Amino acid sequence: MSFRRLQQRIDELNSAVVVGLDPTDDLVPPGVTYKDYIMGIIDAVSDIVPAVKPQAAFYEAYGSDGSGMQLLNSIACYARDKGMYVILDAKRGDIGSTASAYASAYLIKDSPYDAITINGYLGSDGIIPFRDAARLNDKGVFVLVKTSNPSSGELQDLDAGGKTVYEIVAELVRRLNIGDEDMEYPSLGAVIGATYPEQLSSIRTQLPAEMLLVPGFGAQGGTAEDAAKGFINGKCAIVNSSRAVLGAWKKTGKNGIDFAEAARGEALLMRDSLRKAAGHTGH
Amino acid sequence: MSFRRLQQRIDELNSAVVVGLDPTDDLVPPGVTYKDYIMGIIDAVSDIVPAVKPQAAFYEAYGSDGSGMQLLNSIACYARDKGMYVILDAKRGDIGSTASAYASAYLIKDSPYDAITINGYLGSDGIIPFRDAARLNDKGVFVLVKTSNPSSGELQDLDAGGKTVYEIVAELVRRLNIGDEDMEYPSLGAVIGATYPEQLSSIRTQLPAEMLLVPGFGAQGGTAEDAAKGFINGKCAIVNSSRAVLGAWKKTGKNGIDFAEAARGEALLMRDSLRKAAGHTGH
Repeated sequence: MSFRRLQQRIDELNSAVVVGLDPTDDLVPPGVTYKDYIMGIIDAVSDIVPAVKPQAAFYEAYGSDGSGMQLLNSIACYARDKGMYVILDAKRGDIGSTASAYASAYLIKDSPYDAITINGYLGSDGIIPFRDAARLNDKGVFVLVKTSNPSSGELQDLDAGGKTVYEIVAELVRRLNIGDEDMEYPSLGAVIGATYPEQLSSIRTQLPAEMLLVPGFGAQGGTAEDAAKGFINGKCAIVNSSRAVLGAWKKTGKNGIDFAEAARGEALLMRDSLRKAAGHTGH
Repeated sequence: MSFRRLQQRIDELNSAVVVGLDPTDDLVPPGVTYKDYIMGIIDAVSDIVPAVKPQAAFYEAYGSDGSGMQLLNSIACYARDKGMYVILDAKRGDIGSTASAYASAYLIKDSPYDAITINGYLGSDGIIPFRDAARLNDKGVFVLVKTSNPSSGELQDLDAGGKTVYEIVAELVRRLNIGDEDMEYPSLGAVIGATYPEQLSSIRTQLPAEMLLVPGFGAQGGTAEDAAKGFINGKCAIVNSSRAVLGAWKKTGKNGIDFAEAARGEALLMRDSLRKAAGHTGH
């Protein structure tokens, strides 16, 4: 159900953009607090962008004594109150009672997070507890399948008997989705980088209903046409941009007083280029 | 250098035990607070056990608003003040600036953590930032190679051209350790479950100097003889027990008033069985 909610919001706004809330120090304009900056970005895009994706690492780094997670939590609540779908990019991965503990940290009913990213290297033991929590509490889980970074192939592209490792992870996602009460929008989705458009296209075939989270757009090199290979009939994928939106003010020469306006402008450009590409590909 | 410090402490206590601080609600005795319980365990074992391994998930679940990470941080400081080596079991894994953010959250010089566990599914992009922080700040990094859970083989045992995926991860660890200023105790170690003793033995050959973190002892089925396959001349591995030590009080019939004493007893048994097994195998 949870990804059905995401798709509804994507449809309402006719926008498949998710803004990654990954603020490194250099992106926060002078004189603006970290919190005001992120809330300002949310205010600037919440009516044109269906989702945000805070990256847990930056909040953990902000204060490993707990203050970072407190900030993360308040940011997530703020975005959710604005009607946004909140994806926690935590890439957690563990097994049994430990995976259940992560799930109970982030995927309980009244948590401000709608979905989380996880790493499936530990196998189905590491995925099922998250899936079950998602099914129960109307949440979503994105499993890393083919990541956008240059060295992702070192393990993910290994050929294991005629299939790559990432294809086998995709199969696992598909298999573990069987039995979901909403097979049109099952609880497990997948992460596949726009930097690997051919793989994105083939995984799309393997995962005919799964919601895809597509990073690697823009700064990392993925184009709108590349990212659009994740769509099915223009649906079922959401494309992330972090630095290009967060740091758009750096290109205007106004020293950051226009950070919100610049971010909105960049998000609109991205929304429109994705609309166009989705139309072209016929996906 | 950091793993040299760990080995020194292992040698001082002649003990290769690490106690996993993974308290689920059922392990905390009635009437004892979470924090007092964990500190009590630390007090009970700090002179017979060189290291503790708090599992981040349980602290994140304790309070995702930041209170959990605050507790984790104070527990880590407490253990460190007692002379213990602190391994944060976080299984983080991300790339580029995100991995650097995690590293700056947990592997900076004055952090209470001595080492962290990471997931290498993203390839060397996801390992190098942690390794570099570890080298710079005298910390250690354990990369998941072959995990102890039943389904770990689904991806890790896949045959990719005559080598398994976990062997290829082990090769990557070895390769990325080249150039370490302390090649006797390089900054990257590996996680390999005692539940897979044959694999542990073969990975030990692949990784001739790397510190191994060996989970899966006890409750999960690994014996002291299994775990001892991780040693080289009785060194370079540390074996984890969580539930057996934390919940030892459940077997004494005293309703938990003896939780510290019971944990100490269990840790001593484990220490002694590992000493004996290390002697027998000649590893």
